[in-house]
Amino acid sequence: MNTKIYLDNAATTQIDKRVFEAMVPYLSEVYGNASSLHQYGTIVKEQIENSRKRIATYLKCEPEELVFTSSGTEANNFAIKGIAFANRSKGNHIIVSSVEYDCVLNTCKWLETQGFFVTYVPVDNKGLIDIDFLKRCINQKTILVSVMHVNNEIGTIQPIAEIGNICKEKNVYFHSDACQSFGKIPVDTHHIDLLTVNSHKIYGPKGVGALMIKKGTKINPLFHGGGQEFGLRSSTENIEGITGFAKATDLCFGEMENEFKRISGLQKKLISSLSHDIEGIYFNGDLDKRLPHNINFCIRGLEGEAIRFLLLLDEAGIAVSSGSACSSNGDNQASHVLQAIGLNQFEARGSIRISIGRYNTDEELARFSEVFKNKITNLNSIFSKS
Amino acid sequence: MNTKIYLDNAATTQIDKRVFEAMVPYLSEVYGNASSLHQYGTIVKEQIENSRKRIATYLKCEPEELVFTSSGTEANNFAIKGIAFANRSKGNHIIVSSVEYDCVLNTCKWLETQGFFVTYVPVDNKGLIDIDFLKRCINQKTILVSVMHVNNEIGTIQPIAEIGNICKEKNVYFHSDACQSFGKIPVDTHHIDLLTVNSHKIYGPKGVGALMIKKGTKINPLFHGGGQEFGLRSSTENIEGITGFAKATDLCFGEMENEFKRISGLQKKLISSLSHDIEGIYFNGDLDKRLPHNINFCIRGLEGEAIRFLLLLDEAGIAVSSGSACSSNGDNQASHVLQAIGLNQFEARGSIRISIGRYNTDEELARFSEVFKNKITNLNSIFSKS
Repeated sequence: MNTKIYLDNAATTQIDKRVFEAMVPYLSEVYGNASSLHQYGTIVKEQIENSRKRIATYLKCEPEELVFTSSGTEANNFAIKGIAFANRSKGNHIIVSSVEYDCVLNTCKWLETQGFFVTYVPVDNKGLIDIDFLKRCINQKTILVSVMHVNNEIGTIQPIAEIGNICKEKNVYFHSDACQSFGKIPVDTHHIDLLTVNSHKIYGPKGVGALMIKKGTKINPLFHGGGQEFGLRSSTENIEGITGFAKATDLCFGEMENEFKRISGLQKKLISSLSHDIEGIYFNGDLDKRLPHNINFCIRGLEGEAIRFLLLLDEAGIAVSSGSACSSNGDNQASHVLQAIGLNQFEARGSIRISIGRYNTDEELARFSEVFKNKITNLNSIFSKS
Repeated sequence: MNTKIYLDNAATTQIDKRVFEAMVPYLSEVYGNASSLHQYGTIVKEQIENSRKRIATYLKCEPEELVFTSSGTEANNFAIKGIAFANRSKGNHIIVSSVEYDCVLNTCKWLETQGFFVTYVPVDNKGLIDIDFLKRCINQKTILVSVMHVNNEIGTIQPIAEIGNICKEKNVYFHSDACQSFGKIPVDTHHIDLLTVNSHKIYGPKGVGALMIKKGTKINPLFHGGGQEFGLRSSTENIEGITGFAKATDLCFGEMENEFKRISGLQKKLISSLSHDIEGIYFNGDLDKRLPHNINFCIRGLEGEAIRFLLLLDEAGIAVSSGSACSSNGDNQASHVLQAIGLNQFEARGSIRISIGRYNTDEELARFSEVFKNKITNLNSIFSKS
């Protein structure tokens, strides 16, 4: 019996066996370069276009509007730098939310060293963006607004359709990072110019993602070179990754409705059980406008102890996250997201994120709840003795 | 019996079964995010560092000097844009050879739109760079010289140790794209500041490469974000790709000496047989300072017909390339490399590249020679009738 419990699915997910099976031919017998004119190349080219078409269908965009990248981080860098450099003659002002993922924020910080100005829009105590503030910020020099669909740490779902409408009216490009929502809840791309998605958060391989770029969008490539991906992203196409990504997308969209219900049920049950069992627990983010996969909480009296919780749980074979795993690199900086919703640095360092995924069962979550309760009780007794 | 013959190993290679086997755990059971603090993360982090150490050993650099990327194209964009933006206060002049790969040239063309000046150094009729010209070009404003180790189309080996020395003396960064040489011939990185390598040219997976960046090099990231790869290349690490790349590197370096001899033999034999059989054939590039894996030729009287050769051979199950497959995307532009060595557009469109690899046998090359001779004879008779 595998006693381990992986509850860090927002950081990355296990590759689905069906995805792996789909990839195998492209890791062995089918290996051409998609740019080659002979059949080794054309067969790979066809598979790429087939994959592109399938993912585009789910995003309700044209296949030519989907550019494969190596990750969500690449897609976000590409979107923001690409729009910035291509539209500099129009303006040099960019607007992002203050709870964006590090790759958006740090790209913006770099652009500030290159003559761009960035406004960081605040959020309320549930993590929802201040729409009025956003509206007021848009000026003649504004070229891009970037607001994520679902926050990676607290799961808050932003009103991207509404933001898209505002940007449309004001004639400003709108980009959204949908890495946490894609494949889990529907994404309405109607008024979105650029959308980031990736594979390893949806039971696909690492090293592949995509940027949706609507027709007519003026953008510079991040990778210059041989002109692959409609001239927008040069580099030999990662056929094995793209194949896995497309298969993972098929599976997520095929199972979305049932999985949404199942995971919503798990989330509700776990929140209820933690609320009952753990004294002083409080949940971060919006409990309604929230991805059901995400639970984020702190415990009064045990602030600043998230790393300790995490390591105690790890000893018991349970994987959770404190803050954003993708950005932590082992350092214990207080999460900018939790600070943005009003927690102080101390509280922010005490937060635990549980992210539920495809392979988590009711039994696993019950066991997590039990183990966590015991660990907390032990920790509390240590604290009360000291 | 597989009657197909793949002679386009400079475009991409088949993943070695041993590489695939090494990747399988990381495509199934081992799937953590290297930035996660729990054991799912630490086991992946360890594997990445182990892979980095092994590749660094072959490059004779420190592990901390090796940054994983998604491809050679990314590494070249990263090297050139990264040095350009980070050293702009020192100067805005870049020098590259005129036979660089598209991703170097097109990156430079883009930088020209951003206020940088680029000098393109000519080559002689064998494809060897004009060292005196290069020396004379370096001025107070020069921040970077980029010259590839081995040319992808004609296999010419550039004197990168000599160029590295010149750059060292003049206090200018030196970058070399070694995608075509890495794993095939030794690369002396002693006086190289930045070196690009990748995986899918050496029987590893697509979607992974690396940039060696020597300590003290002032460079900006291409991907900003969570701070992975020493803060130089943010993005969740592609563990399956990195594992495959390291295994592929181990195999190439382990077998390098024998494989060099074997492939040199195949090359000599094929050149001799083609010279004997095909009237009017002439070989492009330097026959001595050349990667043994590469043969590039034109046929007098059949200029401009490379695509026709290629498709005729394809019908017979033989894959070769005309010009650079990675950059062609199906278009039939005359190769800039062949024009740089003095061929006119018409001649350049008539060139065929054969690139020999690990799985090619003596019998295969003999059969290629036979088939090609027949195809040419037929083609000649069509031409003489018309």
